[in-house]
Amino acid sequence: MTNAEKALALHEEWNGKFETVPKMDISTREDLALAYTPGVAEPCKVIAQDKEAAYKYTIKSNTVAVVSDGSAVLGLGNIGAYAAMPVMEGKSVLFKSFGDVNAVPICLDTQDTEEIIKTIVNIAPAFGGVNLEDISAPRCFEIEERLKELLDIPVFHDDQHGTAIVVLAGIINGLKVTGKKKEDCRVVINGAGSAGIAITKLLLRYGFPNVTMCDKSGILSKDSADLNWMQKSMMDVTNPDNLHGSLADALKGADIFVGVSAPNIVSPEMVSSMNKDSILFAMANPVPEIMPDVAKAAGARVVGTGRSDFPNQVNNVVAFPGIFKGALQGRATQITEEMKLAAANAIANLVPEDKLSDTNIMPEAFDPQVADVVAKAVMDHIN
Amino acid sequence: MTNAEKALALHEEWNGKFETVPKMDISTREDLALAYTPGVAEPCKVIAQDKEAAYKYTIKSNTVAVVSDGSAVLGLGNIGAYAAMPVMEGKSVLFKSFGDVNAVPICLDTQDTEEIIKTIVNIAPAFGGVNLEDISAPRCFEIEERLKELLDIPVFHDDQHGTAIVVLAGIINGLKVTGKKKEDCRVVINGAGSAGIAITKLLLRYGFPNVTMCDKSGILSKDSADLNWMQKSMMDVTNPDNLHGSLADALKGADIFVGVSAPNIVSPEMVSSMNKDSILFAMANPVPEIMPDVAKAAGARVVGTGRSDFPNQVNNVVAFPGIFKGALQGRATQITEEMKLAAANAIANLVPEDKLSDTNIMPEAFDPQVADVVAKAVMDHIN
Repeated sequence: MTNAEKALALHEEWNGKFETVPKMDISTREDLALAYTPGVAEPCKVIAQDKEAAYKYTIKSNTVAVVSDGSAVLGLGNIGAYAAMPVMEGKSVLFKSFGDVNAVPICLDTQDTEEIIKTIVNIAPAFGGVNLEDISAPRCFEIEERLKELLDIPVFHDDQHGTAIVVLAGIINGLKVTGKKKEDCRVVINGAGSAGIAITKLLLRYGFPNVTMCDKSGILSKDSADLNWMQKSMMDVTNPDNLHGSLADALKGADIFVGVSAPNIVSPEMVSSMNKDSILFAMANPVPEIMPDVAKAAGARVVGTGRSDFPNQVNNVVAFPGIFKGALQGRATQITEEMKLAAANAIANLVPEDKLSDTNIMPEAFDPQVADVVAKAVMDHIN
Repeated sequence: MTNAEKALALHEEWNGKFETVPKMDISTREDLALAYTPGVAEPCKVIAQDKEAAYKYTIKSNTVAVVSDGSAVLGLGNIGAYAAMPVMEGKSVLFKSFGDVNAVPICLDTQDTEEIIKTIVNIAPAFGGVNLEDISAPRCFEIEERLKELLDIPVFHDDQHGTAIVVLAGIINGLKVTGKKKEDCRVVINGAGSAGIAITKLLLRYGFPNVTMCDKSGILSKDSADLNWMQKSMMDVTNPDNLHGSLADALKGADIFVGVSAPNIVSPEMVSSMNKDSILFAMANPVPEIMPDVAKAAGARVVGTGRSDFPNQVNNVVAFPGIFKGALQGRATQITEEMKLAAANAIANLVPEDKLSDTNIMPEAFDPQVADVVAKAVMDHIN
């Protein structure tokens, strides 16, 4: 049985990845009278007077909605709401398994931006946070920004920010290992979708002065045609040298490469053209932009991928459970830039200095302290 | 500590009545690769080809959304989405406790009919059924009917149909106990909201030829002013004798009274004016339309209430968990009238003939076989 067959058989056996398990036993009339009518009227009355009491008496205190419209699922593309469910259920069980945060998958049978926003606003009362997932760019940017304005609970598009936080954590440790300084580094991001743009933004925020974005058409500059509104807005803050040309041109003399793009598009020659002690994150899945051994042979010093079978796996699971755990515990109304930076630093610091090496820049995903450490970093940055 | 104080303290201790508990352990990279990426792509691909496979691989197979807009919660009225949450969580844990059906509370931050319909349609992919709850009349009728047209999963407004099914079950046994025949009975329903109308419809469907509805203004007839569209439509099939007057007038010579209305509005004199061996369901909560001992003293033979501290408790919990359990197991696309009648008969038959008495017409809510018996009755009537 291949792993794919095994995964399919297990999904059939599970027949849904989680259960809604009551916290109380209801086996007597008295139990019923306390958990349901007439006793349930008491918390209802308190919340009717003070909406905030919902955090005291309901699942809102520790439950996240994992919401997708199925428009950009994994590498599968626009497969729709029904087919997206296994991923959203999977994400939901990761929230619980890694962060002890309850999570409910909500797959939306619409891909209309306005309807998505309205629907999420309408269902928000039950939830303490919204994790957006696998929504295509550039719609995902508008949906997230509008929801942040409309809702008083944290809204977090994990494909953007979870990825960006974990990449930044890896880069922070990459700098430590190589002795490079962010001020001196030239960074190239390949892929200008939700992840690429969020990574770029967070690296700029962290203080990298020189970040250049590329996509299939090569280097993105103010002269590029066909940029969406978000990409256009990025041109004011990226590519300070006004580079033009191909990805290969961008990589000449660069220090850091982050790929969230396509398999095998980085050649050994491109790596060789980068600065000494280069840091590469080749995160296309399952086949990276360049295989780690090939990149190393071509001169790269630190190489991370999205895969668990190579060193330095860049895995969102070290970020999102702790981020929501902290946000919920601290009753944050937003996940701010400060929280994202703090989370990235906390993740980086989970690798002790004496264990840091070219092949050990990321913390172990199954380290049980990860979510708590990230949660604390988030909570320390709630205003 | 009063029961109310105890209920409030427990709700604070629970801090949300259920958890989302994964069915699998995720403690190794291999676990992660099967429950999440890359393995999760396999069921996604299958569902993308065949939507029906969602029942095989996702929570849709056994998960209900418990949806309310908070407009008519218990006896508390229009307390809104946040304050309705404890009730919807309570209902959700009853689904699990009594029927082993997973359930997720969804409280809607809108009371606009069109927005409610759209929102529920949009979130439907994750769910195998929709239990509507505590939505005010007459909006609840339109919302349910429209959703039934738009969705291919069962939609069931429990305040209407759950109540109607359990009342009919009680009446079926009331007829057995008293020896009355439905063809000869005159029935009076007091309360013309969602429950009253649904009870009336189901009793008509069961074959009661003479049902008269009353509300605060007295007997409803074709001449009544201020009827809503649903009440108006009921005038074609109720009150065949074209009665006019008060509830007291309606009850003269009646055989069966069902109250879903207000405390203490039925007097002993009204009961005495009814036919011999009268059957009363006085279901206003927590104070019934007439107290059972008072009704008995005035000549009533069988008296049921919504309360657990009197005999013959009429409790929806014997209906909805089994109804959804059967509908989900049999993959019903609707809860039909035939299923409702079958469920009522099944519930009535749960009280063995030799145990039937004036004070024992309803099955024990905690009898573990109830949900399975009701589920089977529903499944036997799926086309």
